[in-house]
Formats: sequence, structure tokens, C-alpha cells
Amino acid sequence: MPKISQKGMSMPSSPIRKLVPFSDAAKKRGVKVYHLNIGQPDIETPKGAIDALQHKEIGVLAYSHSAGYLSCREKLVEYYSRFNINVTADEIIITNGGSEGIQFAFNACLDPGDEVIIPEPFYANYNGFAKTAGVTVKPIVSVIDNGFALPPIEEFEKVITPRTKAIMICNPNNPTGYLYSQQELETLAHIVKKYDLFLFSDEVYREFAYDGEKVFSVMNLKEIEQNVILLDSVSKRYSACGARIGMFVTKNRDVYATAMKFAQARLSPPSFGQFFTEAAVDTPKEYFDAVLAEYIARRNCIVDAINKMPGCFCPKPKGAFYAVARLPIDDSDRFCQWLLEEFSYEGQTVMLAPATGFYSAPGKGKNEVRISYCLKVSDLQAAMKCLEEALKVYPGRK
Amino acid sequence: MPKISQKGMSMPSSPIRKLVPFSDAAKKRGVKVYHLNIGQPDIETPKGAIDALQHKEIGVLAYSHSAGYLSCREKLVEYYSRFNINVTADEIIITNGGSEGIQFAFNACLDPGDEVIIPEPFYANYNGFAKTAGVTVKPIVSVIDNGFALPPIEEFEKVITPRTKAIMICNPNNPTGYLYSQQELETLAHIVKKYDLFLFSDEVYREFAYDGEKVFSVMNLKEIEQNVILLDSVSKRYSACGARIGMFVTKNRDVYATAMKFAQARLSPPSFGQFFTEAAVDTPKEYFDAVLAEYIARRNCIVDAINKMPGCFCPKPKGAFYAVARLPIDDSDRFCQWLLEEFSYEGQTVMLAPATGFYSAPGKGKNEVRISYCLKVSDLQAAMKCLEEALKVYPGRK
Repeated sequence: MPKISQKGMSMPSSPIRKLVPFSDAAKKRGVKVYHLNIGQPDIETPKGAIDALQHKEIGVLAYSHSAGYLSCREKLVEYYSRFNINVTADEIIITNGGSEGIQFAFNACLDPGDEVIIPEPFYANYNGFAKTAGVTVKPIVSVIDNGFALPPIEEFEKVITPRTKAIMICNPNNPTGYLYSQQELETLAHIVKKYDLFLFSDEVYREFAYDGEKVFSVMNLKEIEQNVILLDSVSKRYSACGARIGMFVTKNRDVYATAMKFAQARLSPPSFGQFFTEAAVDTPKEYFDAVLAEYIARRNCIVDAINKMPGCFCPKPKGAFYAVARLPIDDSDRFCQWLLEEFSYEGQTVMLAPATGFYSAPGKGKNEVRISYCLKVSDLQAAMKCLEEALKVYPGRK
Repeated sequence: MPKISQKGMSMPSSPIRKLVPFSDAAKKRGVKVYHLNIGQPDIETPKGAIDALQHKEIGVLAYSHSAGYLSCREKLVEYYSRFNINVTADEIIITNGGSEGIQFAFNACLDPGDEVIIPEPFYANYNGFAKTAGVTVKPIVSVIDNGFALPPIEEFEKVITPRTKAIMICNPNNPTGYLYSQQELETLAHIVKKYDLFLFSDEVYREFAYDGEKVFSVMNLKEIEQNVILLDSVSKRYSACGARIGMFVTKNRDVYATAMKFAQARLSPPSFGQFFTEAAVDTPKEYFDAVLAEYIARRNCIVDAINKMPGCFCPKPKGAFYAVARLPIDDSDRFCQWLLEEFSYEGQTVMLAPATGFYSAPGKGKNEVRISYCLKVSDLQAAMKCLEEALKVYPGRK
């Protein structure tokens, strides 16, 4: 029997899925689980966009252009212009979800053995894409005490080597919810320019910026236009994770042409999802206003609750729908497993994501969890009550 | 300005797209082009499956399971059973088109520097997937004179090295249309077993087998169950290239688990396409009967026409919707470009794919072209007339 590849063996498993068997165990003992572990929005997908797909006349469901239908890319140009991001249709490649865009960025810009710097904690799947491309992730640590702000320049410079080819950020951030300021991004631009690096920016949570803040896109950083790749997706924006439509956007023609070779190899992005996306760009502003109000209430619910619990700390994030909280616990993996296997409060418990999975440095995140607030406020309140009671009795409390 | 990757620079461009600018040139001079260069079926997508998607109630378009919806995989189990392919839902991963399945196979089974043997001419995009995974393709030549049958065992054994990890075939074949016999596949199984290799079989043209022949799947080869990965897609089967739904099928649990790690990194395959696929499995037999009759007529039209042209030879393929023809020409790239740039017959010309793009060995395929017969018979007749007249006046005729 032939052996699987070394690459396959060392490919990281999803840190969130590790807990799935324990979640099943909770259900088996009849305990209701509040899922605060995954970023699957419960918000309804815009009806108008679903309707457009469902009323489209489709004779032959053909391949689209490898960069996506021109009409869809033109609609995305309109979408971006609302955020003062000025791009043209031939600067966009529509991808199989944001995931494929990340893969294109790694493959087009980095060779096996090259390094990408990513502030951690970071979205764990970046590790998988890096492994697939043979790229080494060099993490630098951002810390909970200042809300996971951008680490100082010196931290970047400490890990820059001749193999460093790129810096990658997620803004607003998964898992921390941190929203980078324009000033922080200009600091990044300075490093990027000084060391002639690529800057990959995952901005899939653009619509989720709170307290009157706006996301400043890397596309608007001066003097590094040729270094920047914007990675985007409709998954969170329109609560349409299943559409698998993302965007790879760059003004660098060489990078674009190279990414297109990878795009052509896989022929085309999904047509149905593109029909949906083209219509979704016309989703009325009221939809987002309602969504934003809802998420602000949810965020306030969990952050305020946690900060009232003794020994706990949760910075109030200004974006996305995640927060990382510090808890008085010995080991977040053990704690999250215990919540599912052993704990219940009035027949209920809560599923959280141990923050360890979002750090590469061993030992980091052991007293932190990521909380995804994709449930309605009443459920979040019940979940927070569970957490509060759990922390009172958890045997590994510190 | 940072440089793109070496991998990106050496990534092959699609050989079919090379000619696109010349096709535009033909249109500019007012010449109608018959597109026999691409495998985009013109057959209508089954209405029932489109309807099912368009009538489905969708509230939140969530991620599916990373292997695809269980209900969709169960439906695929039913589909496969009709071809005596006995698999379970947990032996199937639904992929972003057949393309992603190939990528999963390469990544799960082969490391950078490992080798995969592929009889050539072969589907050119295999090169791109190999390049992306850092895998080396070792071609062995199949020849037009015996209709591109499987090369003899000795040819495989000549190129097997300690780095050889897999053999890959496409059956029925793109670009040759060749349908491997059960005996040929058993020969392959013998080599696979003897050298403990993986066998990847791209069977996306399963429905397109002519003259009463049936496709014998690698899933039914004895004694090598653990070595086999079946790669499949709905693109050609249901004329649904834009659905981007493929399948990665294996009974090898280690390979499955490893491929799942890559599947989890990209979260899920497209939901809309899965809704479509689940319903498409119920497409009535009459649909395929009609499609098959149509393609047999098309095949006969082009093969018979070419074999009547002086100095030309085209084996009659038993599957897929491609044929490779030998023409009395100096250079198929030059000829195909000339057809678009300079030639016309009654205001029309024909676009063909130079076979050179389907060989890795330099110089191979210079007097061969691939013809895709995805047009209706009257168009194919007109296209064949163009080809006949073109060969009379082509300056590089041999």
C-alpha cells in the first residue's frame, strides 16, 4: 500500500474541528450546545440575490472566464468604488472562495522555503495554505493587553530574512476582531516598501466595522500599489459562505498574469455563485444597517458579560464577529473539551475555540479562547451564563 | 517592486489560450470561426436539475461539510452504483470541479520532486497541477497509429524510478478520445501493484462511450483498491462546466483523511452546485440516450470527413468528444494560427488545438491537432469543409 505524502502528513488539521467529537458527546448526554466556536453567520442571505439566481434563465451552464464573468467583475468594481477602492475589472480575479485567493497569492508570489510574516493569533487555515505552497509562516506576536494591535516595527524587522517575501494581515481580524488603524497600516506600508515585500490583506470582514469606524484598505496605501494583493470574499458580507466566491485583487500586472495561470489551470470559478454575487452587490444599505446593529448588540453582550466575570478580560473589538478573551484557566484546549464532555448548566453548555489553534508559538493562547458571536443575543446571554458558571467550577481554574 | 515566484514564472500557460488573440484577429477580419478547440459542450444542461436549484428554499447559504453535503454524497453513491462502482458516502469528497480533485490527489500522495507517469498526449492542465504541487510529470508516448492505446508495460518500466509515486490516466481520454479496455486497465493494475504506486483515474467522460462500449472504472480493478483514486466531475456529464462540482473518490482511508485536511483548509465546495448535482443524479436516461446519439453522429461526421482528406488520418475514438488527427502539415501551431489569421473559405474558418500542447516531449504533435466535436453536425460539416480547403492551400503543407 503506497504511502501518503510527507506534505499531507504534516498538513495541519483544523483546530476548530478537533473539538467536534466532544460536541457530539455533549449532544449524546442530552446537553444543548451553544456554538460560539465557528464563524458561520446565522443572518439571512439577501433574498434579492438568491432570487436573481433563482430567476436567471440558464440554458447551458458553461465555464465562465477564468477570472470570472466580466459582468460580475464590473459589478464588483462598482462595489469597491463605494469604499473608495478604485480598481478595474481586469485587476480582479474571482476565486473559489477567499481560500483560493490566498492560495493564488502564495503560489504567485512565494516559492517553497520563502517566508511570510503574519501577526498572530491568526486564522488557522493560513497554515494549511502555507503548507500546501511549501511556504514558511513567521509569526510575530500581538498581545491581548493592547487589544491585539499591530506589533511594533522592530518585531517585524527581527524576523525579516533574505527569504521573507510577504507580510499577511487580516483586517478586521479573525480571530481577534481588531481593526487596524490607518496609521498602523501606514507603518506596515513603510516596512513593505523598505524591504520590498508583498502585502497580502484579507479584508473579508470589511462590512463589519463598529462604533463609526471604517476599514482602511491596503489598496489605498500610497507608494506600495505594486506590492499589494487584496483578498476578499462574499461569504461573511452577504452571509453566503456556501457561494464560494472570493476575489483576488491587485494592480501589479505581473502578479495578476501569474495568478491567472493558476486560475486558468482550474478553468473557472462557480457560475451559480457569480450570478448570485452580481446581484448581491445591489443589496440595499438597510440590510447592512440592520446587520451592523445586530452585531454591535451581540458584541456588547459577550464582551460586557466576560469583563464582569472575575479574572476574565476581553478587549472590545471594533470589527469582524470574533473576540479573544483571557480566562482564568490552565489550558484552553482542556477547558473547551471539559465544557463539552463534563459541564452543563441547566442542561446547556457552550462550545468555544481554544486560542492555541490560532498561534504557532507553542504554549501561546493557553489561557485564551476565541468567541464567535454569530448567535442571537438571547442565545449569547444564555451561553455567557454557562461560561460564567463553568468558570466557577472548572477544576483547572487558576 | 517584489518579484513573482519561480513557480509562478515556470507555471505553464494553457496551450489552448495561446491562440485566443488570433481568434480575435479572425473576427476582426469578419471571418466566422468554428470553435473546435475547446471542450465546452453546447448541449442543454438538464432542466430538472436547474429547476431543483431554482426552487430550493434558501434562508442562510451556509458552508456545507468540507466533503460536501451528506445528502449530495449519498445521491452520488446511488449514481455510482448504476455503473457497478460500489462506494460509500464517506469515500467521496466533493471538490471545486474535477480540477481540485486532481490537486488533492497530487498533494495527498506526492511530495515535491516525486514523479507521476502519464501517457501522452494528455490533458494539458495536468502540467499546471503538477507544477503547483512541485511534482514531476514523466510522460510516456502513446501513438496515433494504434489509436493511442495504452503504451506497453516496458515503456512504463523504463521510466519508473525510486521517486515514481503514481500513474495517472484519463479514461475515456482527453485529448485522444481513446477508451481503455478492461485488459489494458488490468495491465496497468499489474504495474501499479508490482511497484506499489497510486493510480489516479480521471473518468469525467464516463457517459461518453460509443459503439456499445462501457467504461471500465479503476474502482473495479482487483487487488489495488488501496492504490486507486477516482477523479470525477459533473461538468461534461450534465453539460454543467460552470457548476464546479467534482468528486475525489478513494477506499484508502489514509489518503481520504489526508485529502480531507486539504478540503477542510478551503472550508467547503460550492453549495449551489451541490443542490444542482443532487438533483442532476435523477436526470432521466432519455437525456443521455439523446446526447449519446448526437455525439456519435458528430464523431462520425468529423472522423469520416478527415479520413477522406488526402494525407490525413484520424482514428475513430470510442469515447469523450475529442479526436486527434494527423494532418500533412509542417507545424500544428503555425497551421492553427494561419487558419485564424490568414485563411478563410466562404467567409469561414476553423479553430483547432495544436496537439503540441498535449505532449511534453518537444517536437511531438507537430503534425497533429485535437478536434473537439462539441458543435452540431451542420456546423461540423462546414468546419470540415474549411479544413479540407485549408489543407489544399496551406503553405506549410507536407
